[in-house]
Amino acid sequence: MKIDILTLFPDMFTGVFGSSMLKHASEKGHVSFRTVDFREYAANKHKKVDDYPYGGGAGMVLSAQPIFDAVAALKAGLSHEPRVILLCPQGERYTQAKAEELAQEAHLIFLCGHYEGFDERVRTHVVTDELSIGDYVLTGGELGAMVIADSVTRLLPGVLGNEESAVTDSHSTGLLEHPQYTRPADFRGLKVPDVLLSGHHANIVKWRKEQALKRTLERRPDMLQRYSLTEQEEAWLGELKEEE
Amino acid sequence: MKIDILTLFPDMFTGVFGSSMLKHASEKGHVSFRTVDFREYAANKHKKVDDYPYGGGAGMVLSAQPIFDAVAALKAGLSHEPRVILLCPQGERYTQAKAEELAQEAHLIFLCGHYEGFDERVRTHVVTDELSIGDYVLTGGELGAMVIADSVTRLLPGVLGNEESAVTDSHSTGLLEHPQYTRPADFRGLKVPDVLLSGHHANIVKWRKEQALKRTLERRPDMLQRYSLTEQEEAWLGELKEEE
Repeated sequence: MKIDILTLFPDMFTGVFGSSMLKHASEKGHVSFRTVDFREYAANKHKKVDDYPYGGGAGMVLSAQPIFDAVAALKAGLSHEPRVILLCPQGERYTQAKAEELAQEAHLIFLCGHYEGFDERVRTHVVTDELSIGDYVLTGGELGAMVIADSVTRLLPGVLGNEESAVTDSHSTGLLEHPQYTRPADFRGLKVPDVLLSGHHANIVKWRKEQALKRTLERRPDMLQRYSLTEQEEAWLGELKEEE
Repeated sequence: MKIDILTLFPDMFTGVFGSSMLKHASEKGHVSFRTVDFREYAANKHKKVDDYPYGGGAGMVLSAQPIFDAVAALKAGLSHEPRVILLCPQGERYTQAKAEELAQEAHLIFLCGHYEGFDERVRTHVVTDELSIGDYVLTGGELGAMVIADSVTRLLPGVLGNEESAVTDSHSTGLLEHPQYTRPADFRGLKVPDVLLSGHHANIVKWRKEQALKRTLERRPDMLQRYSLTEQEEAWLGELKEEE
């Protein structure tokens, strides 16, 4: 997969792209990252990329020209149509389902603004997807691009080892994960639940599923509504609700 | 504000903390960032920080000891109780309201895992808040810590200039932002709406509010349910719904 990032702050990406999973995925050739400073495409003497909003108001607006031309340069000569993703608060909420969808693509272009809005013509004529990673205000789109790059790259075939990819992740199973414990069994007086030390596999499976249901019920009832319960899970959940 | 980050990948933070708003906020003394590799606190010869889960299963679990001791070292001698924030998929969904709450604190400690789960005793005895930045799976908690650090820091007094802070952000007004345009009025045949060029202030205000309502209605009806409409907005929204 090719991931291009249009940003005014390319240096922001060095630590994240140069560490851990993203670094290894890139070294192994599963993904290639490129950052492009779209200021370089500004067709004016001062390399200015923004201007005052028509109609007045606070803040500046990123101009259409540098972004149109930077994206056109990235797309020149391609036989495929890359997705062009704008990170913005007005975008569709990013989820694991969208990560899985994007992981099927060969080429993603991320467009990151900073402080400012975008000229609407960028949205209507350059961008294919507007995404938001959550309902909070960030200084720019760069962190959103990193979040999406990380969550998509880890889904590419061969990126995670078997051990890592076998871990049941909360947002892929549909339930929050059960509590986990490791050695020692007694840490400064804090003990591991007996059932986990019992070696009784069926009881451990039951305890974990009950704990996952309980945690999801308490913390994220919205996730439980979207989850298809087995008959056994339904019974356990009934017991949990009675206990409350 | 003091922000400490416990992580096994301190290098991931250099680009983000060393650029743009976070860099300036730190240079001006509004915030100080410190990353701590909690592997240094592992009380075993091989500096091992994880172990197999009790009860079996795939994946490893971060042990209690290095994290208990790293947090204790950060808290030693403090007269205040810092918030200790665990980034995890099981956490409460992070929102702008939580950003505003955290911006009141003097000291935040972020705890970032990587690939793995945490020994439950870390959650129950060290952590004050469990937060999730969204319903997607990330390789570690580091990007979540950066997202929260960015969104909280920009709220600290003096960090943003007047111009920047006056910008009405989607997740602080309760509506998605209206479309913005800047020069030229005709860009390669794509034109700015006449109303914005009219100089008629009241019409511009009305157009923008209608566009914000329309965009929110189309993209995020859930936000509209939580928004208190004025009588005028109610009327405009009625017209928009009729048009559809």
